[in-house]
Amino acid sequence: MSQSYRPIIWKDDTLLLLDQRLLPQTETFVEVKDLKGCALAIKDMIVRGAPCIGFTAIYGMALWVKAQSSLTVASCRNACDEMISARPTAVNLSFEVNRCFEIMKNGLAENQSKEDLYKKLVAFGDLQIKESHEKNTAMAKIGFEELKKKVGDKKWRLMTHCNTGFLACGSLGTALGVISYANSQGQVEYVYADETRPYMQGTRLTAFELSKENIPYSIVVEGAASYLLSHNKVDAIFVGADRIAANGDTANKVGTSTLAIVAKHYNIPFYVVAPVSSFDVTIPDGSHIEIEMRPINEITELKGIKLAPEGANAVNPSFDVTDHQFITGIICEKGFINPKNPGELVRVVQS
Amino acid sequence: MSQSYRPIIWKDDTLLLLDQRLLPQTETFVEVKDLKGCALAIKDMIVRGAPCIGFTAIYGMALWVKAQSSLTVASCRNACDEMISARPTAVNLSFEVNRCFEIMKNGLAENQSKEDLYKKLVAFGDLQIKESHEKNTAMAKIGFEELKKKVGDKKWRLMTHCNTGFLACGSLGTALGVISYANSQGQVEYVYADETRPYMQGTRLTAFELSKENIPYSIVVEGAASYLLSHNKVDAIFVGADRIAANGDTANKVGTSTLAIVAKHYNIPFYVVAPVSSFDVTIPDGSHIEIEMRPINEITELKGIKLAPEGANAVNPSFDVTDHQFITGIICEKGFINPKNPGELVRVVQS
Repeated sequence: MSQSYRPIIWKDDTLLLLDQRLLPQTETFVEVKDLKGCALAIKDMIVRGAPCIGFTAIYGMALWVKAQSSLTVASCRNACDEMISARPTAVNLSFEVNRCFEIMKNGLAENQSKEDLYKKLVAFGDLQIKESHEKNTAMAKIGFEELKKKVGDKKWRLMTHCNTGFLACGSLGTALGVISYANSQGQVEYVYADETRPYMQGTRLTAFELSKENIPYSIVVEGAASYLLSHNKVDAIFVGADRIAANGDTANKVGTSTLAIVAKHYNIPFYVVAPVSSFDVTIPDGSHIEIEMRPINEITELKGIKLAPEGANAVNPSFDVTDHQFITGIICEKGFINPKNPGELVRVVQS
Repeated sequence: MSQSYRPIIWKDDTLLLLDQRLLPQTETFVEVKDLKGCALAIKDMIVRGAPCIGFTAIYGMALWVKAQSSLTVASCRNACDEMISARPTAVNLSFEVNRCFEIMKNGLAENQSKEDLYKKLVAFGDLQIKESHEKNTAMAKIGFEELKKKVGDKKWRLMTHCNTGFLACGSLGTALGVISYANSQGQVEYVYADETRPYMQGTRLTAFELSKENIPYSIVVEGAASYLLSHNKVDAIFVGADRIAANGDTANKVGTSTLAIVAKHYNIPFYVVAPVSSFDVTIPDGSHIEIEMRPINEITELKGIKLAPEGANAVNPSFDVTDHQFITGIICEKGFINPKNPGELVRVVQS
């Protein structure tokens, strides 16, 4: 499957970044030509999603190398630290930048030219995007085959929660990757996208992605799940994951578990799609996953407009944990996992 | 239980109406002294909720009588029609205004004075408010006794969906009436109020009501239901109803059925509180209830701010139908109904 839309484009020694802060109303690409521009794009959230932040940082290091008259291990380390400080808590950012540092250090040890090092870093960035796309395509194909078996050859009405497409993943996506791929095979009739309160990732981002791929869709409030499923509007549901425990319990955007329970009641297949990097087999089940509580003004306000009375309190868990018994299947790049089979998850993930 | 806060106050030949359009940020009472003022308050939604609209209309007819130099059956009919035209689709409005017309017509036939007629209409309005309060108090007491049996004597953590308090009902309320009453008895520890997408009745109105009664509460997004219930934060859930079928299937604000399914999964008692006037025993079950679809911009926009991409579609059902098997009990002013007992609902409602 070709990749039709990318929020990160490397072209003619320049990085083009879709300014995700302006979505979905305005679609503008920002041109970035140096380290400072990349770091600022990460810091100001022009670019978001762990994979995209990683890709941006790698190209940023390449651009930095290109701009230097001379390179030392120390100057490389300083530049890497400057990039990491753009978002110090983003694990994927430091992970990728430190991999860049290894490339630079080894190159210097081997007396590689600046031009060679630049090309090596660009190639490294290209490879990460390619591998990410391959991983997502592998998951999408597994999801596609599962749907053919489970739902059959008629066109499918699918539902999703939160944002898991190319805006979050750089390429194709996870849960939305399955939907995009199925659409490219002519198999998608309609998609229902949960608006995803409180941050509206569905309304703002998933709707944008579906529009870009010309997939017919409707945004729905999360409370409408029972209405939609009881009226036989949905054949299967796909969601992503933030963390998956050894028994298949899955932490994902708040509302996922609520949707899974309703899906189970109406006997609608419910799938989790996530790369192996999201699995944490060191924890036996979901009770070991801590739920981050987010600021209450995400609920009491919207875009600076106060909605609730002065002094109102709110509870704003960022995630919930979906019990593995409500998950029909977990799809990763290594295969399909039925979480009802004990041990299957660990076997597939460690294969 | 005393009625501490009222959105409709009749005092010194003047009607004071809480301007519900400005809630929850601004709390302003509008003074209304004639029919036109009452009709405009109904039309412009200063006042909302079927009972409140009815009360306002009755006092409006009283104010009209007071202002006339002479009365005829025809002029009374014209005045009634003017009031009804403020919101022609509001069934309760025409019902109450036509009852006023009967009082006026009979009064004229008996040659009652204008002053007597005025007093009669004011007394009629007062009586409606009193009867509504008594009905709601009766329901609240039934709910309170049920909670004592079901949850026990510890303080209760309760949850509710949409807006069912004094703002909607004029006095006490239905589902929130139970909560207010329980609070007045010192039995409420905490309340979780669903924000209630897309129109945010929970954030705007229920939170205002809970604040006014000094009940500790948090607003939550609807997707957080599974998180809250799985973390043992809620002892019981109370919702209102728009229409209840003979078997107990209940139409209420979209999201109610979703919440009820999640409650059933976690074995949390789920109650519907509604006056007998909301029951429709002519329909055997919920499949006969038509679901009104509302404008999509309630979902794609908020307070005029566009949230979704240009051209985005949405599905916006105003209600859903909760299967009676998920309802622990239905509470009306005539008693407690277990909808799992066939025939019990019709027996209680027609008693």
